[in-house]
Amino acid sequence: MYFATYKYDRAEEIGVVLKEDKRIIPIKDIFKAMDKDYPETMNDFIEIADDTLIKDMEEIMGFNNFKGIEEKDVKLCAPIPYPKRNIICLGKNYIDHAKETQGLPGGTDDIPKFPIYFSKIASPAIGDGDIILNHLEITDMVDYEVELAVIIGKDGINIKKEEVEDYIFGYTIVNDISARNIQRKHGQWFKGKSLETHCPMGPYIAYKNEIPFPVELDIACKVNDELRQNSNTKNLIFDIPYIINDLSKGMRLKAGDIVITGTPAGVGLGFKPFKFLKPGDKVECYIEKIGTLTNKFEE
Amino acid sequence: MYFATYKYDRAEEIGVVLKEDKRIIPIKDIFKAMDKDYPETMNDFIEIADDTLIKDMEEIMGFNNFKGIEEKDVKLCAPIPYPKRNIICLGKNYIDHAKETQGLPGGTDDIPKFPIYFSKIASPAIGDGDIILNHLEITDMVDYEVELAVIIGKDGINIKKEEVEDYIFGYTIVNDISARNIQRKHGQWFKGKSLETHCPMGPYIAYKNEIPFPVELDIACKVNDELRQNSNTKNLIFDIPYIINDLSKGMRLKAGDIVITGTPAGVGLGFKPFKFLKPGDKVECYIEKIGTLTNKFEE
Repeated sequence: MYFATYKYDRAEEIGVVLKEDKRIIPIKDIFKAMDKDYPETMNDFIEIADDTLIKDMEEIMGFNNFKGIEEKDVKLCAPIPYPKRNIICLGKNYIDHAKETQGLPGGTDDIPKFPIYFSKIASPAIGDGDIILNHLEITDMVDYEVELAVIIGKDGINIKKEEVEDYIFGYTIVNDISARNIQRKHGQWFKGKSLETHCPMGPYIAYKNEIPFPVELDIACKVNDELRQNSNTKNLIFDIPYIINDLSKGMRLKAGDIVITGTPAGVGLGFKPFKFLKPGDKVECYIEKIGTLTNKFEE
Repeated sequence: MYFATYKYDRAEEIGVVLKEDKRIIPIKDIFKAMDKDYPETMNDFIEIADDTLIKDMEEIMGFNNFKGIEEKDVKLCAPIPYPKRNIICLGKNYIDHAKETQGLPGGTDDIPKFPIYFSKIASPAIGDGDIILNHLEITDMVDYEVELAVIIGKDGINIKKEEVEDYIFGYTIVNDISARNIQRKHGQWFKGKSLETHCPMGPYIAYKNEIPFPVELDIACKVNDELRQNSNTKNLIFDIPYIINDLSKGMRLKAGDIVITGTPAGVGLGFKPFKFLKPGDKVECYIEKIGTLTNKFEE
């Protein structure tokens, strides 16, 4: 099952995406049919969702012929436009990417022996089709990074590796837009990762039962139809069970938290000369079984 | 005016602290007397508070003889137990502290030319009197850092230096507890700063009109009555107008955001041998005109 946050008739709503039919069934319609109070935001939905609820929803969608809305008639937002806390990010989590940025702005000098964690502000995260602002007054080194985002489904601390999937709600795509000069200038990466609009997310969340575990999905990024990044999430240095287990040691993860798992080689910083985003560039981030997140860079 | 979040009769409430009288007037009582809907949390209060509201509150408190609650009868919480986003932190923002940590775990090698920004999870932040957990299974290098916390009062991006005070709600104390081995292990500092209970905050928020601007306040930290840190916020390398102006370039600050401004020399990491927290240690963080935040390290 796939979930989206969208604007329709000026209201922001959440719904189930029928990818084949290109239709969205509002979650409030499904909950009304189940005679339940409906969650208003994706964060509220994630708090209550589990396999039983998803099965109940599938069942009632089988019985009822919900009309829904055509996807073309809505404006997709980020699935979680206002994460409850900062997005938790991993740096240098594909070997080929760690190598391509050695010694460069925001780069480290080695393949990491332990995960590099930092955080990114996304409030709001922008959705499919939205414009990435250039912030020309402070940067001319804006870069793209396609990443698999893991969405936590329930609170947990000291989560065991073998129980990690239980704590996952689902998966989406995040383009971890990075202002490389600012990332370097401040030593720690937080500010260079947190500029306004620099967190495209979406287009949908794939509920975890859509994605076999361990997660091995093709991941790619195109800029103006030129393939720049092309890998598979099986190439993560630290895989999802490792990350969630390690991250949750002494630190409580919460339902709705978003962990982005790092980007493969092919970012603008990795080319000679650099290939940072230029006015009007179209950036498409693709992950198998999730979809394609497309954004334009400000003209 | 001083504000606190506290538990009384099992409910979490917010109130005005009368420091001399050691009493707290619940904000709901004041708002009821003003015939207004009352905010339930400090975040809600910060969203609506401005100089006019504070003046109206002062006025009605002059007319009415609110009985209030004795401070000894409540449990103080962190003034903002659940910040809406991660706490924004500055590293190495006092010259003497930058020098003491050169080459050490989590240290940088130079006095920073630009602010070092990173983030810290506080959910919940703990209050005065609460226990700092030791997380013995992952660290034996837990350190204290007294810091002046600036609480943002209204949303803003690209805030001018001369307008910074308008965007401030008030000030409190944060003890930026740091697990030094984890801070170093992961390269970026986020995880080592974000362990459960590692963000003591309080005891109160001082509304900005209590603190002359520019902010020049004595700041100190004692461990078991031994004075470890002792400085004044006038010694910040990057001062508050610089920080808020610089941080808000391209990044929107929001009402309720908390920016902690760095710690002076005297942290455990700065001593030879190290003086990290030991079981049962009492840590007192003091800032002039705000108060003292006292916590014990787990036995």
